[in-house]
Amino acid sequence: MNSITTIGFDADDTLWHNETIYSLTQEKFKKLLAPYQNEEWINDRLFETEMRNLKFYGYGIKSFTLSMIETAIELSEGRISGEEIKSILSFGREMMTIPVSVFEQVHDVLSHLSGSYKLLLITKGDLLDQQSKIAQSRLESFFSGIEIVSNKRPATYQAILDRFNIEPDQFLMVGNSLRSDILPVLEIGGHAVYIPFHITWAHEEISAEEEKEHDYFQLENLGQLPALLAMWLDKGSA
Amino acid sequence: MNSITTIGFDADDTLWHNETIYSLTQEKFKKLLAPYQNEEWINDRLFETEMRNLKFYGYGIKSFTLSMIETAIELSEGRISGEEIKSILSFGREMMTIPVSVFEQVHDVLSHLSGSYKLLLITKGDLLDQQSKIAQSRLESFFSGIEIVSNKRPATYQAILDRFNIEPDQFLMVGNSLRSDILPVLEIGGHAVYIPFHITWAHEEISAEEEKEHDYFQLENLGQLPALLAMWLDKGSA
Repeated sequence: MNSITTIGFDADDTLWHNETIYSLTQEKFKKLLAPYQNEEWINDRLFETEMRNLKFYGYGIKSFTLSMIETAIELSEGRISGEEIKSILSFGREMMTIPVSVFEQVHDVLSHLSGSYKLLLITKGDLLDQQSKIAQSRLESFFSGIEIVSNKRPATYQAILDRFNIEPDQFLMVGNSLRSDILPVLEIGGHAVYIPFHITWAHEEISAEEEKEHDYFQLENLGQLPALLAMWLDKGSA
Repeated sequence: MNSITTIGFDADDTLWHNETIYSLTQEKFKKLLAPYQNEEWINDRLFETEMRNLKFYGYGIKSFTLSMIETAIELSEGRISGEEIKSILSFGREMMTIPVSVFEQVHDVLSHLSGSYKLLLITKGDLLDQQSKIAQSRLESFFSGIEIVSNKRPATYQAILDRFNIEPDQFLMVGNSLRSDILPVLEIGGHAVYIPFHITWAHEEISAEEEKEHDYFQLENLGQLPALLAMWLDKGSA
């Protein structure tokens, strides 16, 4: 095992709250559409619409807003009113103005680790959205590089490592999504630490089949990362 | 005058058609809303909505679609129907699927210049949108770096030059927007070539006041760029 020189961090639900905001909005959306359909059906159809639109719209709040509008028209069979669509637009706008809520310990952990490791922020999503959250988080100065990407496939990570001249074996990725943060990094020969968040967007879920037989660490919170790295270092030098 | 080592290219309306697609969509939008308002009023209000939303939504087709929906609800005083909003959603989706139409001579000029200069693509807009146009254009391999940014302020250009270790005086930016491609680059001490496109989005227009007394070159088309650079090289070595 080589020594780790660089740590990549996912942002949404790894450094700060995100999925919570989507869930709360989805609750408002269901209430708005309650006169037209039952709640479960609304959830399923919204998720279907999001998945269908992913290749056109990508990730982020604007995409989610457009998918809510499309779903509302479909589920109401066109009976949705202009005023109701206006409410959906404001749901999206409210999501954009919710202040970023950085998880506990994040500031201290990054501050501590940035003394010994090169830190990268690697996040997928909407460019402006993510930039505004990064600026608000006041964590920017800890990172040597900030990469906002439209997907997190193995090739995406490989391209970032190439750009920074990092060998996969020297790279550790930390994130809350097995599909986006852990498996693709293991696939190119990197290391990974999985820190699950209590809500996972269905799109990020993977089957039990995919989950097993992978060599990653799992932690309960980011505060445990420095101790894990210290152990790693001891093992490497033993 | 130092010698140029690096040339930055804007993408939309510099390398390929873009504003044309927005104009055509705006025509469809005006037709759709014709029962509610007169055309000029529709144009003005749509532009107002776009400008008001810019700080939330940023640039790109998703933002434009959301602003069209908002304008339609306002202008119809909520009377717009679900079916009509559905048409607006499909206007946006159609924009995304229009094949990229690269301007004549672009391929040859980039191929020629990439032998002697480091080329960068510097474009503002939506991440997924721009990536998909770059992939379709088949021009990617000519560029040493592709930078998709959320704004084109002087600091944006400075950060890119810093990252690539380029002195502003060795950098030349080529683009169709005085506001985004030319003035901010001159401001940090770089050089610029302005190639106007016959349609300019009102947001990119600048006043006659701002336009004068700036030291940039103006060309009619990208095909003239190699000759300009050759002259420059002669002057530099004279």
